[in-house]
Amino acid sequence: MIKIGVLGMGRMGNAHVPHLNANPNAKVVAAYDPDPQKAADAKAKFNLELANSAEELIKRTDIDAIFITSPTYCHIEALKPAFETGKPVFCEKPLCRTEKQCQEIEKMAQESKSVVTIGFVRRYDAAQKAYHEAIVSGKIGTVRDANVDLSLGVFKRMPGDWFADFDLSGGVVLDMLSHHLDLLIWDFGPVRSVVANATFESKYFPLPNDFAAAAVTFKSGVVAGINSSWHRSGRNANFMEAFGDDGSVSFSWGEQKYNFYLPGQPAQIIETGPKQDAYLLQDNAWIDSILKGTKPVVTLQDGINAFRFADAILRAAAEQTRVEL
Amino acid sequence: MIKIGVLGMGRMGNAHVPHLNANPNAKVVAAYDPDPQKAADAKAKFNLELANSAEELIKRTDIDAIFITSPTYCHIEALKPAFETGKPVFCEKPLCRTEKQCQEIEKMAQESKSVVTIGFVRRYDAAQKAYHEAIVSGKIGTVRDANVDLSLGVFKRMPGDWFADFDLSGGVVLDMLSHHLDLLIWDFGPVRSVVANATFESKYFPLPNDFAAAAVTFKSGVVAGINSSWHRSGRNANFMEAFGDDGSVSFSWGEQKYNFYLPGQPAQIIETGPKQDAYLLQDNAWIDSILKGTKPVVTLQDGINAFRFADAILRAAAEQTRVEL
Repeated sequence: MIKIGVLGMGRMGNAHVPHLNANPNAKVVAAYDPDPQKAADAKAKFNLELANSAEELIKRTDIDAIFITSPTYCHIEALKPAFETGKPVFCEKPLCRTEKQCQEIEKMAQESKSVVTIGFVRRYDAAQKAYHEAIVSGKIGTVRDANVDLSLGVFKRMPGDWFADFDLSGGVVLDMLSHHLDLLIWDFGPVRSVVANATFESKYFPLPNDFAAAAVTFKSGVVAGINSSWHRSGRNANFMEAFGDDGSVSFSWGEQKYNFYLPGQPAQIIETGPKQDAYLLQDNAWIDSILKGTKPVVTLQDGINAFRFADAILRAAAEQTRVEL
Repeated sequence: MIKIGVLGMGRMGNAHVPHLNANPNAKVVAAYDPDPQKAADAKAKFNLELANSAEELIKRTDIDAIFITSPTYCHIEALKPAFETGKPVFCEKPLCRTEKQCQEIEKMAQESKSVVTIGFVRRYDAAQKAYHEAIVSGKIGTVRDANVDLSLGVFKRMPGDWFADFDLSGGVVLDMLSHHLDLLIWDFGPVRSVVANATFESKYFPLPNDFAAAAVTFKSGVVAGINSSWHRSGRNANFMEAFGDDGSVSFSWGEQKYNFYLPGQPAQIIETGPKQDAYLLQDNAWIDSILKGTKPVVTLQDGINAFRFADAILRAAAEQTRVEL
């Protein structure tokens, strides 16, 4: 039985705890949240003990593994004591907010026995995996180019919310697009260079919203276009596509299928099995990897790579330069 | 009665001549095509006279106006003698292939009485005009960002075809996307800077295809993402959208409507009237502008601006730099 301590009982903490408790080999025994109300609610809802600080929770001897669901900019505060204990860690995506934090985390990880996984939940989704497999298996031939269209038309965050504060969240690129950036690296390998323009959740906008357009080259030679937004109006899309010499594939997140195109032919719908909860699969995979001592599906290095990809897009836009990775 | 000479009896020449002849104030009296078969076919089909060279056609005293529908890289060869005559000119888009040609055309135009229009046919489409009006009228408030998604999944050109030769056509960016670049300038004003990655119809691909992703800033502060492709497989899209503080609009080419979104609300379908042939409207508008001596809807300067925007994307990608305009 893996006994788990959860840092942060906001939206993500409340989503994960039931999944973890549903695993016969795991139990969330304690949690910490700096907001007394959120902490009290979690205690009542999940029958868990409360710690008085992140460090107290992490260092409890009856806690085997650490689950970090605090806001992005706070992850490092939980990672520090976690690395000191050497306990296994699940850290929600994105790994951190700044390159300085990323370097600190990298250094701490080298000196720690902790095995860390990052919550890139889409890696556990059957349709996403089938789409990835189509790309890397050669099904579409040599891959040449790709697009990501992440368009949110229902962004409702208001001023004061940390998601609406670019300095805390990193906006759509770091918070949401980091999923796709992780997937692009998974599909096409390491990034060579990035160019971009963005609005950085501008403080001059009447209400929070965000937009970034980027063009990427991968070391493999693949070229990709990326559009990402948190808009207060407009369409919603969460779409990826890849083009090879022999065909192409496209995938919309949430569907149990992807499209496969051969030249001159209409889309073939490739069914990928019944709907499953990727969050549940992810949490179960983490428990399994702890029990078996195997490498997690998503590694700390994956989290570092996705952070640096996102940060490169933001720097390319902020400094109006091409960022090489 | 405006008597017209047509340079180039390929696909576009054959499309325009019936429209021009349908106008009660216009008649195509002669044409030139370097391909004897195409010339003979045009003579038989449209009952017109054939010239032995572009220059002979253009300088015929019974020809009042010049219609240029030759391949992009040949436009300048027809523009030169046309400018010498001072006759009005319709030149298909894009204006030219290279910056050197663009500068020559600019110089010739300054010394000529010829009034030139460029075939950016989408400017004559009722739905496109309504979408544009929604943006510039303030209907969506201060405009912040925009996207273009031009995805062709049915590109069939084969090696040997000038469209498949980047040096001759400029690929998807110059040939097809130049429509959208003209429209973006129409919607948002002059471009400030461009970054991009592209594949330039690579000669290493087994069959011709093309891809470019760009991110643009306009002098107005608007930021835009652009995805454009000629692929041999995959979906087809010809889509534009713009986001403002008060709402957003989107438009798919060919539809008699656009979408208007207010925050938190589903799309409102704005109908824009019955389907009309924008090519016919365009050709009639040109004849009208000649008869009335009015400025054409699309000016030579618009053609120059769209060319330089396209060329900036291609240079930004080729030189891996940010191009300022």
